[in-house]
Amino acid sequence: MIEPYGRQRVVIEGVWPEIDGGRFPIKRVVGEPVVVEADVYCDGHDQVAGVLCWRRVPEPTWQETRLEYVENDRWRASFTVTAVGRWCYTLLAWVDRFQSWAHDLAKRVDAGQDVCVDLRIGAELVAAAAARASGADAERLAAIAAVLRDAGEAAVPLALSAELAALMWRHADRRFATAYDRELCVVVDPERARFSAWYELFPRSTAREPGRHGTFADVMARLPYVRDLGFDVLYLPPIHPIGRSFRKGRNNAPTAAPGDPGSPWAIGGPEGGHTAIHPELGTLDDFRRLVARARDLGIAVALDLAFQCSPDHPYVREHPEWFRWRPDGTIQYAENPPKKYQDIYPFDFETDAWRALWEELNRVVRFWIAQGVQIFRVDNPHTKPFAFWEWLIDDIKRDYPDTIFLAEAFTRPKVMYRLAKLGFSQSYTYFAWRQTKWELTQYLTELTETAAREFFRPNFWPNTPDILTEQLQQGGWPTFAARLVLAATLSSNYGIYGPAFELMENRPLEPGREEYLDSEKYEIKCWDWNRPTSLRELIARVNQIRRQNPALQSNAGLRFHAVDNDQLIAYSKQSADGGNLILVVVNLDPHYRQSGWLTLPLDALGLPAGGPYTVYDLLADARYHWQGPTNYVELNPHEQPAHIFLVQH
Amino acid sequence: MIEPYGRQRVVIEGVWPEIDGGRFPIKRVVGEPVVVEADVYCDGHDQVAGVLCWRRVPEPTWQETRLEYVENDRWRASFTVTAVGRWCYTLLAWVDRFQSWAHDLAKRVDAGQDVCVDLRIGAELVAAAAARASGADAERLAAIAAVLRDAGEAAVPLALSAELAALMWRHADRRFATAYDRELCVVVDPERARFSAWYELFPRSTAREPGRHGTFADVMARLPYVRDLGFDVLYLPPIHPIGRSFRKGRNNAPTAAPGDPGSPWAIGGPEGGHTAIHPELGTLDDFRRLVARARDLGIAVALDLAFQCSPDHPYVREHPEWFRWRPDGTIQYAENPPKKYQDIYPFDFETDAWRALWEELNRVVRFWIAQGVQIFRVDNPHTKPFAFWEWLIDDIKRDYPDTIFLAEAFTRPKVMYRLAKLGFSQSYTYFAWRQTKWELTQYLTELTETAAREFFRPNFWPNTPDILTEQLQQGGWPTFAARLVLAATLSSNYGIYGPAFELMENRPLEPGREEYLDSEKYEIKCWDWNRPTSLRELIARVNQIRRQNPALQSNAGLRFHAVDNDQLIAYSKQSADGGNLILVVVNLDPHYRQSGWLTLPLDALGLPAGGPYTVYDLLADARYHWQGPTNYVELNPHEQPAHIFLVQH
Repeated sequence: MIEPYGRQRVVIEGVWPEIDGGRFPIKRVVGEPVVVEADVYCDGHDQVAGVLCWRRVPEPTWQETRLEYVENDRWRASFTVTAVGRWCYTLLAWVDRFQSWAHDLAKRVDAGQDVCVDLRIGAELVAAAAARASGADAERLAAIAAVLRDAGEAAVPLALSAELAALMWRHADRRFATAYDRELCVVVDPERARFSAWYELFPRSTAREPGRHGTFADVMARLPYVRDLGFDVLYLPPIHPIGRSFRKGRNNAPTAAPGDPGSPWAIGGPEGGHTAIHPELGTLDDFRRLVARARDLGIAVALDLAFQCSPDHPYVREHPEWFRWRPDGTIQYAENPPKKYQDIYPFDFETDAWRALWEELNRVVRFWIAQGVQIFRVDNPHTKPFAFWEWLIDDIKRDYPDTIFLAEAFTRPKVMYRLAKLGFSQSYTYFAWRQTKWELTQYLTELTETAAREFFRPNFWPNTPDILTEQLQQGGWPTFAARLVLAATLSSNYGIYGPAFELMENRPLEPGREEYLDSEKYEIKCWDWNRPTSLRELIARVNQIRRQNPALQSNAGLRFHAVDNDQLIAYSKQSADGGNLILVVVNLDPHYRQSGWLTLPLDALGLPAGGPYTVYDLLADARYHWQGPTNYVELNPHEQPAHIFLVQH
Repeated sequence: MIEPYGRQRVVIEGVWPEIDGGRFPIKRVVGEPVVVEADVYCDGHDQVAGVLCWRRVPEPTWQETRLEYVENDRWRASFTVTAVGRWCYTLLAWVDRFQSWAHDLAKRVDAGQDVCVDLRIGAELVAAAAARASGADAERLAAIAAVLRDAGEAAVPLALSAELAALMWRHADRRFATAYDRELCVVVDPERARFSAWYELFPRSTAREPGRHGTFADVMARLPYVRDLGFDVLYLPPIHPIGRSFRKGRNNAPTAAPGDPGSPWAIGGPEGGHTAIHPELGTLDDFRRLVARARDLGIAVALDLAFQCSPDHPYVREHPEWFRWRPDGTIQYAENPPKKYQDIYPFDFETDAWRALWEELNRVVRFWIAQGVQIFRVDNPHTKPFAFWEWLIDDIKRDYPDTIFLAEAFTRPKVMYRLAKLGFSQSYTYFAWRQTKWELTQYLTELTETAAREFFRPNFWPNTPDILTEQLQQGGWPTFAARLVLAATLSSNYGIYGPAFELMENRPLEPGREEYLDSEKYEIKCWDWNRPTSLRELIARVNQIRRQNPALQSNAGLRFHAVDNDQLIAYSKQSADGGNLILVVVNLDPHYRQSGWLTLPLDALGLPAGGPYTVYDLLADARYHWQGPTNYVELNPHEQPAHIFLVQH
């Protein structure tokens, strides 16, 4: 029973967006709106009023936007986040005595009642507002109060005027206002967090001559290729010295043959650890030159954060307390019993020295940021403590709010979501294994229509160095093409591991496995980058379509549409302003021509109910004139596995 | 970065039940289980373990129940609330190093690996547990640690034994355990909060002779009638002195004629206010006698809490500061412009003296509790501040946890739910206006299958002194009978306003209105209680069926079933142990015989898929032998508008 609790009559609840009771921030990119809704009401029949309060951290001053009534005690307001960093929002609402009074006055007047006493009640409310106001507003309010008090019925028009309503709103009585008891956060990222096309390559496989170890200079020479394909993120697996102890051989052989280069994820050698560069790739200067040259071409270089060590990593010698020791005096290597990974020492995050370990890993990230890196692909984040990532990402983004972290976790659903909630800007997904129409529809509906849309930004990869799905192994060109179109149009963030993808590398380590045969993880490759059968042209065209069509730069406007054939999936994306509408139809069957009747919700899409409209296939440069909701579609996978239509009317 | 935050690897989230992030308690009655679920997981591949912690307030010591794994990182445990009052629960979970180790050890052994070092690691874990334990457990753990350390492979069976697992569970390493950051509450009510049958009557209309003002003695004489009908709550409209100023006449006439008794809700006169008794009803002693006699018959007397005053109420003179004053020196009466209720002064809960007002109203409740009243029907709670009710109900229930509050609010959905969340034990509902199969199914599904089931206990009334629906006005006996069966079997709490209901009073004030003609609210009635056409027998039978069948004493086991006729609604209720299964079929059409095919989910109901089962109509004393999921039903509303089947197999 403390003041003003007893007189705070307004309730604010059901606030959205709000993740886990405000425990986690939502995500936006610069320029996006944050639309906030809440149930706001009070006891009795009084009118309520309120504001959405928002500010950019660390600015202490709240901005306000007036809440507008929606329906069923629901209210709404929005603000736009105009810069990267953290923003906060909350709500404030109060009983609006003046509005309640004016509302009742109008009804009394309509009923022909004597309202002289009511006008005097209003005069008191207006006089109180005058006392709260200053300057011209105070003078005008005082004058109006006098009219209401003394002019009798003649004062009714002034009492109900828009001028008075506006003045009273500006000087509302907020003494007993209810403040929502939480400040909710928004992490605002650069636009690339929402819209990006990633290309992964192994730098050591970029040499033009077979057998030579690729260098940063070779990577630089490949940049025009990557740019021509239309990618804007170039992700490099670890570029650090590789351990020698227990080094794996080709095809993950337990022992390396002489000359085998080892896995780049076995980080650390005599030359250094997580802040050193593998000598055969070049120098730190070479790396900085690569980053700068890429930036000139519109490409951001993304590095791999793989927080683990080879037995030869300097940390092992300098910080034995960061590892788990076994009773036989050895360090615990990575295991997934009965499998053993003797070439990898995980950190022991339960060490008494966890603070120093956290600080050192923070230093690693800051080191690479100092070299110009803004994007990190984080290896297996689900095997390090959640609290660590939450702290690390928050700490880094306080100083470098432009930084983007992609979580490479392929694990259980709740763990995937937790990592996104606690700060990862983008996340790998189950896309590679969602292949049927039902699976894709279910999964995308979950990602785009549940609370996940507020914190989980999917990044769709049809392949990775670890994932060559059975579908890709067997489906040939139609499947590679279809999966590319699906990834690039279902998700505004997507990526491929190349040039394995565009060259349609499809040989598994052995039947039933998803690993590549002769994987680049364990050997240096010399790819035939310019092979005529490459998917280069298709990829370049799809990326160009993405850049030219805002609808494909977000997942917000995704809708699935009915086709009476389970081998054909159809969906549209619409830009926020409704002005750009893309319709995609994909044949999921790599073998046979499939056809069916596609039905669109014309009204929801803003298409004419009666008249004709045009669908222009941006891939095939073909134009169709459609009419009404239901139209015929047909795709021969050997000619064209997908339509990407621009819908025009 | 404070200890042990950095090493708390376990996440606890998605806890259920939890209302609005723990802001409000859930509700149970004595003897019910509280089943708690949560997502519990950690990074990496370690096993987690945890407990549900619970205690009865104010006992400080937590009891623990081990969490059991469900699926998809979801865990579950439960406890039973064995007494009225407040209970709390929360969760605690940790990484179970021992279980993780044992799990891996088994896999290593299966793979034929050398596990000598692993056994020594286990020995360290067991020795650490021995240090945490004491007595026999400590000795046994130390002994086992020695075996694991020294016995080599021979120690494997002991390492994986149930004995060691149990010991290690008892002495688990909880140093880095994660405690869920909220304590969640349960308000435990007496069983009547969940299962009750209410009968409302106007004491002044209970005299046997026309024209005489009924007394508590007359009410006492009616108690056997109420008991024979099978009701266990007798709710009396306000029994206090009635104001004279602006008293309403018959049929709510603006002016009372001489001798008009006025509305009992215009509380307060020279004889006193909310703690006084209307002199014509009798004395406080008479009232106490009534309460005691009712209790002997198994009936609880419920009083009306109508926190408002007539202009003649002593508060008006003694506490003018509790009312809102107008500029003309009068007190603001109740209004819903343009309607005016000059006979009612609402309290001004925004008064500076709100604390004293709250305390006085608290005193009123305590006064009646001291007279033996345990149940209150609260008039229009939605017109008083939410914070007031939350404080009042909590404060009363701290001293009298047996008290039951029924919220008489017929207002917007979110307000209805808010009142329930903040403490009301039961709530009036929209039942009176939910009449079609679709409406009833939707509404009951919302009440029984959403979060509302945890805090909102519906009380279904087919009529009240203010609500004579058009359906009841026009449907005759079939509708009265059907609505009774629906109310009494859909909701474990229900009530009727009698004898208007059983005598099928159906004359509205005027066409299109829901008020009764010649309403008891404004005049004294002399009912023909024993009229042969009364629904007495049906009501008594239905209430007997409710008492004899546990399935009808809760809403937890409600399921709707398909009938291929929209005029027939079918649903079943099953007791928590599955042993009692009631199937209800109601003909919603008061005019015509309706028939259809009813389909039951045999497996879900525990009925034989192939064999026969019996449905015994408890209303008609008729037995049918059914087989398979789909059977024929037919109801002639003029003979029998509903089946209440006991399903047996």
